Amino acid sequence: MFPPRTPAHVQRAHKSILHIYEFLAKYERWTAARGETGCDFALGNPQTMPPDAFVSALRDATTPRDKAWYAYKTNEGSSREVVRASLHKVTGLDYPPENIFLTNGATGALLVTMNALIGPDDEVLYNSPPWFFYEGMVWNSGGTPIAVDVDRDTFDLDVGAIERAINERTRFVIVNSPNNPTGKVYSPDTLTKLGKVLEGASRNIGRPIYLVSDEAYRAVLYDGAAFHSPTKYYRNSIMIYTYGKTLLTPGQRIGYIALSPQMDDLEELRTILYSSQILSGWAMTSALMQHSLPDLEKISIDVRALQERRDRFVTGLRECGYEVRMPEGAFYVTPKAPIEDDVRFSNLLAEEGVFCLPGSVVRMNGYFRASVTASDDMVERALPIFAAVRKKALKG
Amino acid sequence: MFPPRTPAHVQRAHKSILHIYEFLAKYERWTAARGETGCDFALGNPQTMPPDAFVSALRDATTPRDKAWYAYKTNEGSSREVVRASLHKVTGLDYPPENIFLTNGATGALLVTMNALIGPDDEVLYNSPPWFFYEGMVWNSGGTPIAVDVDRDTFDLDVGAIERAINERTRFVIVNSPNNPTGKVYSPDTLTKLGKVLEGASRNIGRPIYLVSDEAYRAVLYDGAAFHSPTKYYRNSIMIYTYGKTLLTPGQRIGYIALSPQMDDLEELRTILYSSQILSGWAMTSALMQHSLPDLEKISIDVRALQERRDRFVTGLRECGYEVRMPEGAFYVTPKAPIEDDVRFSNLLAEEGVFCLPGSVVRMNGYFRASVTASDDMVERALPIFAAVRKKALKG
Repeated sequence: MFPPRTPAHVQRAHKSILHIYEFLAKYERWTAARGETGCDFALGNPQTMPPDAFVSALRDATTPRDKAWYAYKTNEGSSREVVRASLHKVTGLDYPPENIFLTNGATGALLVTMNALIGPDDEVLYNSPPWFFYEGMVWNSGGTPIAVDVDRDTFDLDVGAIERAINERTRFVIVNSPNNPTGKVYSPDTLTKLGKVLEGASRNIGRPIYLVSDEAYRAVLYDGAAFHSPTKYYRNSIMIYTYGKTLLTPGQRIGYIALSPQMDDLEELRTILYSSQILSGWAMTSALMQHSLPDLEKISIDVRALQERRDRFVTGLRECGYEVRMPEGAFYVTPKAPIEDDVRFSNLLAEEGVFCLPGSVVRMNGYFRASVTASDDMVERALPIFAAVRKKALKG
Repeated sequence: MFPPRTPAHVQRAHKSILHIYEFLAKYERWTAARGETGCDFALGNPQTMPPDAFVSALRDATTPRDKAWYAYKTNEGSSREVVRASLHKVTGLDYPPENIFLTNGATGALLVTMNALIGPDDEVLYNSPPWFFYEGMVWNSGGTPIAVDVDRDTFDLDVGAIERAINERTRFVIVNSPNNPTGKVYSPDTLTKLGKVLEGASRNIGRPIYLVSDEAYRAVLYDGAAFHSPTKYYRNSIMIYTYGKTLLTPGQRIGYIALSPQMDDLEELRTILYSSQILSGWAMTSALMQHSLPDLEKISIDVRALQERRDRFVTGLRECGYEVRMPEGAFYVTPKAPIEDDVRFSNLLAEEGVFCLPGSVVRMNGYFRASVTASDDMVERALPIFAAVRKKALKG
């Protein structure tokens, strides 16, 4: 299965994403076979044209203003200033510009963070059901990933379980709010408890356990909910952000790492993060994305339209008999599958041209995940199919 | 110096690039102080405006043709086809498209390769004087970097020294031709010898030792020289390429990994490389760069103009009394510093507004490196300064 001398951690990393490959291979066949007639809820990918303002920003930034326009970029001062101003609005904190590192999306930001911090004896905790790649990325960086289940009834963080999972080897805890896949936005109350646990554990261990706050979906909030950055509740926090969700342009790769201004050992952390960024493949976002960032920061997809689609979709699913929570943020609706075998159920839907992610791919067995980045038309066409396939599945 | 619990390999990685930071800090001060009056030979950065065709290609690619234009990209079929056709011209070999992985430049390609292959017990050989970041990137991936000196008179690979450095722990050998910094292009004769040594060593050890061929400067060849890809002389070869040198747009990040069609364990290697690419920060080049690739493949900076500048520069330096080889390819001229202390000499040049890299930053003590990506005007203004500073340095 592997070439000779493949390192054990590379084997583990690969194995951790095998179930995703299996799904993606099927998904590719499904979409190829159905073309425009398919109803695609499978991934957080755009099913409508990109925002005009996004295209204009990129087009405008292609015109070189000086000879260094496409020269090597690092974390440009102009980009850091845009992010600094944005972070002040989000957190109320004053971020020194040098705490900000421009990366190729949130995944690039996680890579740089993990490569800077994780050693072979380190454990990393992450909330589960998780984003696809936390586990594999920790293996890839040479550490050991430890999943900590959220409360399965409320989808809230289980702070007690996190406390019990922490030990001498714990390096950091990844929290993702608004959450993919559950749609949960963690409350100030939960985050205050989490901050206290991390503060206490760090004191006991004699060094900071970091909080890594994946805020990819920070701008995708429903019902006028406020976003509470986990980084406001614990000073040793590292924020991860991407513009790929806010703009629904995930292929264009721009995001950042921001170190809390209140962290311990700030100067030393900046140093190893910058070296990690350089040595992790010159992991700076491209010249063009840095030039367009001042414009990109001002725009967003239409979250109100997304909310209306979520409402129509959740209401429609409930009318068909599905048990489903109303997500508070992010792109995903996660109904219970009417039968236990979520892979089989997802296959049944696909036979009728409706593509959803089986929950077990993201350790949410017995559920499925449907992205509201699908078009309104897809929702209308899919609802009768959801109803029919549910009946068919229940009949066996 | 480091935050608590910083892994040993992260510390080593950081330390390996400290001398580069020191230079860059000075360089930033120099260029800020001199502005347009400086003569900048320090890095392989453009000192003239980017090619019009490059700008047009990017601008044209910004216009979305479908809803997936800025959706997640992997190694797109259209991109692989462009590269496949190009590789057939360069190597005469038929590359299956699935052997090609689109990355954020050559540095991104090296990251993905290293993360897929290197384990904690592995050694990686690389030719020295080396590119800035081989050493640090191997540390970053958890392996041990081993420098093997080239012949200091001819700058040719020392194949005997490579053979002696190989042992049971050797994972791969990195070769860079045309070479940065030496300007050497390795000959078919040298590469044949290298291939035989690697073939023999692999047989002895019972598994392939890979050749990683960094061909970033492949298109920058002088005097009508032909390029001989090292990958043609050894079947277990992994090619690394970037468009950043060919187009002199290093901030725009597009390159690739190509596995030789003749490799052992090809299917298994593809598998771990793709997982490494995903888990190393979704290390695919951006949507826009993939859309523009068919156009980018057709263009190049004006290598003839670069050659004329090289000729004028080398001739001028020799007339001032510098001992300097004529580079066969890549961007760099590497004269002997007139005094042993190359850092001091580079400082003396900088005082007069001429910025060059001290050789010791790239383990080429007693030399300095000057990039012919400087403008013609910079060359003319700098030559009298090179003459004067040489005299001043020799006087002590």
